[in-house]
Amino acid sequence: MPPTLTDIREAAQRIKPYAHRTPVLTCESLNQQVNAQVYLKCENFQKVGAFKFRGACNAIYTLTDAEAARGVATHSSGNHAQALALAARIRGVPAYIVMPENAPQVKKDAVAGYGGQITFCEPTLEARESTLDRIRLDTGATVIHPYNNERVIAGQGTAALELLEDVPGLDVIIAPVGGGGLLSGTAIAATELQPKIRVIAGEPEMADDAYRSLKAGEIIPSVKPKTIADGLLTSLGTLTFPIIQQRVEQIVTVSEAGIIASMKFIWERAKIVIEPSAALPVGVLWERKIGLTGLKIGIILSGGNVDLEKLPWQSLA
Amino acid sequence: MPPTLTDIREAAQRIKPYAHRTPVLTCESLNQQVNAQVYLKCENFQKVGAFKFRGACNAIYTLTDAEAARGVATHSSGNHAQALALAARIRGVPAYIVMPENAPQVKKDAVAGYGGQITFCEPTLEARESTLDRIRLDTGATVIHPYNNERVIAGQGTAALELLEDVPGLDVIIAPVGGGGLLSGTAIAATELQPKIRVIAGEPEMADDAYRSLKAGEIIPSVKPKTIADGLLTSLGTLTFPIIQQRVEQIVTVSEAGIIASMKFIWERAKIVIEPSAALPVGVLWERKIGLTGLKIGIILSGGNVDLEKLPWQSLA
Repeated sequence: MPPTLTDIREAAQRIKPYAHRTPVLTCESLNQQVNAQVYLKCENFQKVGAFKFRGACNAIYTLTDAEAARGVATHSSGNHAQALALAARIRGVPAYIVMPENAPQVKKDAVAGYGGQITFCEPTLEARESTLDRIRLDTGATVIHPYNNERVIAGQGTAALELLEDVPGLDVIIAPVGGGGLLSGTAIAATELQPKIRVIAGEPEMADDAYRSLKAGEIIPSVKPKTIADGLLTSLGTLTFPIIQQRVEQIVTVSEAGIIASMKFIWERAKIVIEPSAALPVGVLWERKIGLTGLKIGIILSGGNVDLEKLPWQSLA
Repeated sequence: MPPTLTDIREAAQRIKPYAHRTPVLTCESLNQQVNAQVYLKCENFQKVGAFKFRGACNAIYTLTDAEAARGVATHSSGNHAQALALAARIRGVPAYIVMPENAPQVKKDAVAGYGGQITFCEPTLEARESTLDRIRLDTGATVIHPYNNERVIAGQGTAALELLEDVPGLDVIIAPVGGGGLLSGTAIAATELQPKIRVIAGEPEMADDAYRSLKAGEIIPSVKPKTIADGLLTSLGTLTFPIIQQRVEQIVTVSEAGIIASMKFIWERAKIVIEPSAALPVGVLWERKIGLTGLKIGIILSGGNVDLEKLPWQSLA
């Protein structure tokens, strides 16, 4: 069953003591640049630096005490791993994180820093899944999928809920799409609260499986995607795809140059640090493939975790 | 006459329609890092990306219509030039900006982009001052000094006014010090509103003229300062120095490594873009030369204008 607006509202109450209510910023030079009124929901300021904390926190706090005591588990090398580790630590339960042994040291350190118990495996999907399964059997931990999970989706939807509370009367809301957890949660919250709102997603041209899936009417897996937006490499899930089919008007693809230009513009003019994946919705406006002139547009800036030693626009030089 | 709290309050009303009331952010990992409760007043989100807009705007809007019609003038290649150009454009009057011909193209473009009328000169103080004087005589424009000007100081003090309204009960407020406009305005607002508050400044070790001036009891000029905090190269002024003597508890110097580490930490963990000069107050906490453990500390993050092509921590690699 897909989550309902009630599920999202309950998630909002559940995570309220632990998650930040992130601010909504505006930036005049962005508005001028894209000819629209843009409202930036700053999930880069969320705990662990990404919206993922919302879903992880909701998933962990919906467990019974007995379930929670056995812990949670996932395989991830990204923001979901950090989010799950921190949310588990806050509830005081173990988080078992399967990571490929070749994951960047900075990500290993981050997960360990939040108290996650890491098990390394070969860098293949098969190894990750079999390792996770073994941990689940050994510990009785509940596996929390990064996006194909109702409670995670409901949690991610709370960002849009807050945005629509803070900024009434949005014409459009735009989120990035990878596995679709954020997008499906956003779409449920937005269309239930404002049936006429247009929900649009931004996806990298170089990882356009969701775009193709919507066209085809079935999930088309992401095969060897190669984009700087490393949070958006995954394929849609069986739970997220139908929600997106039903509630998302369209997915707009953005070039790598458009992602980088949008990201840099936000750093330079809005003075905030966002990761490449968070630049996708800005890129939709930036590249003007669809007409959104003059509209009131909400954007979910999904996260701000980047390696400051090497920035994407610098590798272009 | 130094500005009073009333002057600062009037400045706040005067600039209210034009300047942003910037948000105050907190960052748990910063609090943990420095063992204090830190409140960041985000002037990097101010118009033109720096607090300088407050002073420039107050100075321009206190002119009579006849004065304003003749325009304003200054010599600057930094944030003050952009701030004055924008504030003048908002009032609809000319801004004459003298810039050294070797100023970075990005700064020339920024001033021109805000409608400033640039006159280039040789890159010496003498050439800048004589060129400015000629423009003043030719146009009748009012010269607005970047910091040694009561109306500018009053305008800069409005940031602290807002911070103290938003966060009652601060034990300490810390600002960076260059020419002392921000610091003196901050000190007047803070000590008048809360006589027991401690006002502290952060200054680069490599440009420690204000530190030495306070020790010596007279203004010691800044001679060939060499710091990454390029907004803090100037010497104190005849107006700002006595205010600082009277109201600032102490000036704490920060090493270049401390400035860079503090700046990077704010980018990484608070997810906001600040310029090196804005990192000085964080650096005061970071280097722990003075004991501020457990206190409730307000920090003025002065600005966020940086060249994203080349970041200071990268040149260390």
